[in-house]
Amino acid sequence: MIAAYQARCQARVDAALETLFTPPREDLQRLYQAMRYSVVNGGKRVRPLLAYAACEALGGDPARADGAACAVELIHAYSLVHDDLPAMDDDALRRGQPTTHIAFDEACAILAGDGLQALAFEVLADARLNPQDAGTRLAMVSALARAAGSAGMVGGQAIDLEAVGRRIDQAALETMHRHKTGALIEASVRLGALASGHADAARLEALARYAGAVGLAFQVQDDILDVESDTATLGKTQGKDQAHDKPTYPALLGLDPAKAYALALRDQALAALEGFGDGAEPLRDLARYIVERRN
Amino acid sequence: MIAAYQARCQARVDAALETLFTPPREDLQRLYQAMRYSVVNGGKRVRPLLAYAACEALGGDPARADGAACAVELIHAYSLVHDDLPAMDDDALRRGQPTTHIAFDEACAILAGDGLQALAFEVLADARLNPQDAGTRLAMVSALARAAGSAGMVGGQAIDLEAVGRRIDQAALETMHRHKTGALIEASVRLGALASGHADAARLEALARYAGAVGLAFQVQDDILDVESDTATLGKTQGKDQAHDKPTYPALLGLDPAKAYALALRDQALAALEGFGDGAEPLRDLARYIVERRN
Repeated sequence: MIAAYQARCQARVDAALETLFTPPREDLQRLYQAMRYSVVNGGKRVRPLLAYAACEALGGDPARADGAACAVELIHAYSLVHDDLPAMDDDALRRGQPTTHIAFDEACAILAGDGLQALAFEVLADARLNPQDAGTRLAMVSALARAAGSAGMVGGQAIDLEAVGRRIDQAALETMHRHKTGALIEASVRLGALASGHADAARLEALARYAGAVGLAFQVQDDILDVESDTATLGKTQGKDQAHDKPTYPALLGLDPAKAYALALRDQALAALEGFGDGAEPLRDLARYIVERRN
Repeated sequence: MIAAYQARCQARVDAALETLFTPPREDLQRLYQAMRYSVVNGGKRVRPLLAYAACEALGGDPARADGAACAVELIHAYSLVHDDLPAMDDDALRRGQPTTHIAFDEACAILAGDGLQALAFEVLADARLNPQDAGTRLAMVSALARAAGSAGMVGGQAIDLEAVGRRIDQAALETMHRHKTGALIEASVRLGALASGHADAARLEALARYAGAVGLAFQVQDDILDVESDTATLGKTQGKDQAHDKPTYPALLGLDPAKAYALALRDQALAALEGFGDGAEPLRDLARYIVERRN
């Protein structure tokens, strides 16, 4: 079920993303190649899926969420490019491919990331990819800027870097993840909901609770997979978090309690969607899938 | 004249910028410090001045341009932080102070830059600092995203990095500068004009011509000062462009023809403002000042 839905969302967002990387001049070709390389890479498109599914959960046509889906994926892609830099996590491999600063060079990777962030806001402001009224587009810009910025994703990465090698408790780990990955996941759901044209405060709040639980479940499962999977399945170096002495849920809680926690978060996510109709089925499927996936 | 106006603009935008760097949590203090350090640094605030002056040229209250002024300065500040990184221009000194990656560390500087870019869009979307109708705020987001992104400022930096050590002609140098600095200068004027509430297509076009000429004059004069000034006056290492074998106007045209070119650009800028009234006097003063400044 979710595999077919995911494939449809992936095809939708990939087609929309592909329109964004035509260099306006020949001497910008390499920069645009680096941006495209960082985005068009067979990624699972979890955030776009959340945007489309949230739009459908409120009865909206998924076509209305193309802009939201592109924008959140562009922010996600830029964050990976910058996180992989030598001064940050220093990763040479991402989804089994050389990271952007390896495939191009470090300066090009910094600039590609910067360009991708600007592009996310350009897409949201553009009526072509994001055919909402001005007020809705503006609410989307605002939500994405907050989620991506220093009080959200960027802040989470800063907290994460300072936490390396330190003993932190579960509350501190949760805070880090709620910023680093949770903020953008919540924004994906919010932007998709706004794109439906049928968002109201109560349902936005319920969707935010869903997104908070799903985002954390995703992270707990990632930590579990880092312990359990081999490098080939994972597409990145297995055991890397432990080797870097990064705090993880299995390290903090033990492997089995971490698994139980992931399941409890899934149930919280499903509970938040009570009162939503059949249109929310893809969101429910995703919550179930997250804790069952193997990579 | 322009010195007093500049001081007023600086005070205005600095007061507005100071409200933006209160960390929402204690563990984000260092990131917010790095962001503030990168912005609150005694900068000349040329771009905010252009935003305020364009707003006034169209009869708008400068208070309406606070959001525009902050946003363009935040983009400018982030671009300097990233340009100074070891993988880019590798600069340890900026306005006589350690650059952000020296004062903090490289990872923190990358993240601070990323956070500043997101903050620029957050500010524009926020009615508190940018009290325009939704359509105007959205037009500002769109213009800033284009100017800051891969078809604008980021693209210019990419062209610049590829041009180091190569012989390029005047047309190629101009293209690089029109992207690297010109796009954001033009956006500063456009955002200020939009903030006035009295922008129309004809005057936006005239202001864009003004901004194009002023932006290029600024760059030509920068190149001249890099040859003529000493390090203390300049606040950065003198002769650095030549030492890095970067293409410059004096190297390409000769020193005296470069000076004549700067004056011709000033005259083009002034000509673009014919038909504007006394409210455009600060814009005219700035065009005159740019080619007379010594640092």
